[in-house]
Amino acid sequence: MDNINVIAFDADDTLWVNEPIYRKTEEQCKQILEPYLFPPELSEKLYETEMKNLKLFGYGIKSFTLSLIETAIELSDNQVSAGEIQKIIDLGKEMRQHPVELLPGVEETLRELEDEYKLMVLTKGDLLDQESKIARSGLDPHFDYIEIVSDKSTDTYSRILSHYSIEPSNFLMVGNSLKSDVLPVCKIGGHAIHIPYHITWDHEEVDPDEAQKDGYHELDDISQLPDFINRSE
Amino acid sequence: MDNINVIAFDADDTLWVNEPIYRKTEEQCKQILEPYLFPPELSEKLYETEMKNLKLFGYGIKSFTLSLIETAIELSDNQVSAGEIQKIIDLGKEMRQHPVELLPGVEETLRELEDEYKLMVLTKGDLLDQESKIARSGLDPHFDYIEIVSDKSTDTYSRILSHYSIEPSNFLMVGNSLKSDVLPVCKIGGHAIHIPYHITWDHEEVDPDEAQKDGYHELDDISQLPDFINRSE
Repeated sequence: MDNINVIAFDADDTLWVNEPIYRKTEEQCKQILEPYLFPPELSEKLYETEMKNLKLFGYGIKSFTLSLIETAIELSDNQVSAGEIQKIIDLGKEMRQHPVELLPGVEETLRELEDEYKLMVLTKGDLLDQESKIARSGLDPHFDYIEIVSDKSTDTYSRILSHYSIEPSNFLMVGNSLKSDVLPVCKIGGHAIHIPYHITWDHEEVDPDEAQKDGYHELDDISQLPDFINRSE
Repeated sequence: MDNINVIAFDADDTLWVNEPIYRKTEEQCKQILEPYLFPPELSEKLYETEMKNLKLFGYGIKSFTLSLIETAIELSDNQVSAGEIQKIIDLGKEMRQHPVELLPGVEETLRELEDEYKLMVLTKGDLLDQESKIARSGLDPHFDYIEIVSDKSTDTYSRILSHYSIEPSNFLMVGNSLKSDVLPVCKIGGHAIHIPYHITWDHEEVDPDEAQKDGYHELDDISQLPDFINRSE
């Protein structure tokens, strides 16, 4: 990892808590829909609906809320009431206003790295959700660049690196998703560090065989990052 | 308008048809909700709901769909059925797949300008909606830069110009909204051309008194743009 000069960070579940908020909302939705369904059905059907809607609605809270409503309609066999659907929309609104909870060590780590490296947020999702979280996180001053994208493919990374005239060999991506943050970056010749989070959305899970094919590093905690980079130089 | 070297174009109702698709969906929704309401009520209440939700949900089809559902629930006094709500979600999905219809003269105009100027799409809205429309429009090859933003304020324009190291005096913005495309650009010292579209969403309307305060030009048709720029130099 010689010659790194730009470090990009994924945001959700790398800089701050995200997936647990979605899971909590799912649980609240199960309570609303209790009259109509056996609660464990919801998670499976919801995931199926989200995957079906992904191409049209993308990632983020609005997409999740619409998928929750569709799942409620289908699983209740059209019996869910307008009032209950309004409650689901209200859950979506609560998610948008949920306080941003930084993961331990994030701010200190950024402070340690910001003088020596250009720092970037590189997150996928809904533009407004992510902008709002960046603003409310208070982390904005530590970052030189902010990129919110609709998906994290090798093409996305190539486009962004070319836009900022960054050579892949000078680029390090840090994130919790092997699928989105690690494997595509390794594929285009960049460096990547995987910091697993205790909950991962199924959609971001990767077949371990595929993960073996590329070289990347894994750390338990973002606080280990500055030392790890210094040792690797 | 000497020394223009970057021309940015708004997208919805400047490059392609947009507002009529929203209006058409509103009409279809009125038919679905006919049993519950006096149709003209819908437009007014919908706009009120959209404005209330704007800060949380932003612009775009998902936000519009969620506001339609909330409006239906409220105006039907909780009587709208799950099946009818599913129909509203399906309207949102149809909008996302609606063919992109270029406005007359757009492609020729871009072709005339692209050798001499750097061209940018600068559009506000939902990331995925706008990316999909840019891809499906086929206009992508004419543009040097693409910027999708959550709102078009003076701060947004200042940030983008600084990001690309563009002096405001070298920047021309072209669009159909006085509020979003013209006034904020004039305020930061850039150039702007207003090309009105026959339908404007109420939210983009501006008090004529405010519009008088800044200097900008108005054209009837995007095809007049190359001649206008040449004459002004």
